[in-house]
Amino acid sequence: MTGKARADLVGSVAIVGAGQVGTMVGLALRDGRAPDVALFDRDPAAAAASLARGAGDRLLAEPAAALAADTLVLALPVPDVLGFLRQYGGTVRPGTLVLDTASAKGMVVRAMRECLPAAVHAVGGHPMAGTEGAGPAAARPELLLDAAFVLTPVREDPAALAGARTFVRALGACPVEMDAGDHDATIARTSHLPHVAAFAVAAAAGQAATQPWFASGLAATGYRSTTRLAGSDPRMVASFLWANGAEVRAAVRELRDWLSRLESGLEAGPERLAGLLAEARSAGTALT
Amino acid sequence: MTGKARADLVGSVAIVGAGQVGTMVGLALRDGRAPDVALFDRDPAAAAASLARGAGDRLLAEPAAALAADTLVLALPVPDVLGFLRQYGGTVRPGTLVLDTASAKGMVVRAMRECLPAAVHAVGGHPMAGTEGAGPAAARPELLLDAAFVLTPVREDPAALAGARTFVRALGACPVEMDAGDHDATIARTSHLPHVAAFAVAAAAGQAATQPWFASGLAATGYRSTTRLAGSDPRMVASFLWANGAEVRAAVRELRDWLSRLESGLEAGPERLAGLLAEARSAGTALT
Repeated sequence: MTGKARADLVGSVAIVGAGQVGTMVGLALRDGRAPDVALFDRDPAAAAASLARGAGDRLLAEPAAALAADTLVLALPVPDVLGFLRQYGGTVRPGTLVLDTASAKGMVVRAMRECLPAAVHAVGGHPMAGTEGAGPAAARPELLLDAAFVLTPVREDPAALAGARTFVRALGACPVEMDAGDHDATIARTSHLPHVAAFAVAAAAGQAATQPWFASGLAATGYRSTTRLAGSDPRMVASFLWANGAEVRAAVRELRDWLSRLESGLEAGPERLAGLLAEARSAGTALT
Repeated sequence: MTGKARADLVGSVAIVGAGQVGTMVGLALRDGRAPDVALFDRDPAAAAASLARGAGDRLLAEPAAALAADTLVLALPVPDVLGFLRQYGGTVRPGTLVLDTASAKGMVVRAMRECLPAAVHAVGGHPMAGTEGAGPAAARPELLLDAAFVLTPVREDPAALAGARTFVRALGACPVEMDAGDHDATIARTSHLPHVAAFAVAAAAGQAATQPWFASGLAATGYRSTTRLAGSDPRMVASFLWANGAEVRAAVRELRDWLSRLESGLEAGPERLAGLLAEARSAGTALT
């Protein structure tokens, strides 16, 4: 498919939220993949930085101006997606494609169903691409190439899914359709729990670092890779952990249960412990 | 310092255990940094692979043959270091420098004190370099360059520490002297806990992957970096978690305490949760 053909299919785009993800999406639409890309961010510096990186053709002065676009992308943390839908949802034009990019989908899909008129084509979205960095400078559009981009249906609306699939393909990503609940349960284990573990290790090690016995300089590459996600924006992480609260709580319970088994294994000696670790390793590496 | 000068200082070396770490040490001694490097591994295939990579000049047919070297490096998991010391410790020649590379030092230092004659120069060692890979093929000697190499005193023996420092510098690493107990408490948080967390996330996600709602293909880079250490050899990880059991248990308790705080934060809403995460992030990133 050529850039021209994609531009015809995608139509004009407004991206609300010009942080890492919004900027990544905007950058992936360069080279004429959409006839017009407009950006809004309530932080004028972020909006300007995103525009300067080439993520859009122009800035919007207010979020309501985004309602003029054919495709409206809400690249915001969940609470802000919900806030936008409550404030502007009722005035979205019929035929508009509305897509978000937040990593918890149940709450978003429910709010889309409640706040958007039936003639609006709404789909929940979650690109499996991004970094722990925040803001336009951290956007890496090449991560979207061939990445899974989850699409969760909002209501019986084949045109919505068809439009979202076309949009995702224009970004270079692969649309993967699934139920919002299945997405949230899965992501709680494959993404939200890794975030929790990274912050938990950082907290424990950081607390230890205040002790008199602590020797600095012994945090090596293993520490860095395990805690890399703890470099993420705390507000963003808090928003998706909260929005996916029920599944995250279940995943944290599973983590704690396994830690209890590990503690028993420590008592039982290296052989039993090795068996428990081998089981975890083989279960976990099957996912990657 | 030239390679020649180093070779004079280091003397002949025997490395018992030609896995990832032993091979890394042997490779770092190439270019004449030691006049003779002999390798032993109870797995003949590992020994041959290590020799083929150039980690030594020759293979030893039995562990006792290592006792002829000026410097004896025990590059073994803790239980095997203890086993070697119990079996051969009493027959180590006076003046020999004995160094190990295991990541838990308290047990090793105690066993060295008990099993080695007073005229043997013994030091506990732990290079802060390595990968999650196992065996000679995973050895990356460049990781030793400028890496911290912890040295933990065994008894009042300045010659032992001086010899160990010279040996560590010959590897290109930086000797860092500290108490074995301080090392173990620190490493429990900066290395052993990251291993525990990586295996725990792998276990929880792996268990979820057996559920009907699980969507494969959603484990992205965040999952991979957080669980990277779960690719480590389970027997090796089990051996250091067990050998550092008291400190690992304390660290796991700290991890669980923080998870409880997170669960309370999930109830309290995104603002409180963001505060907790920000605190963990800033404490943890201060270490790297």
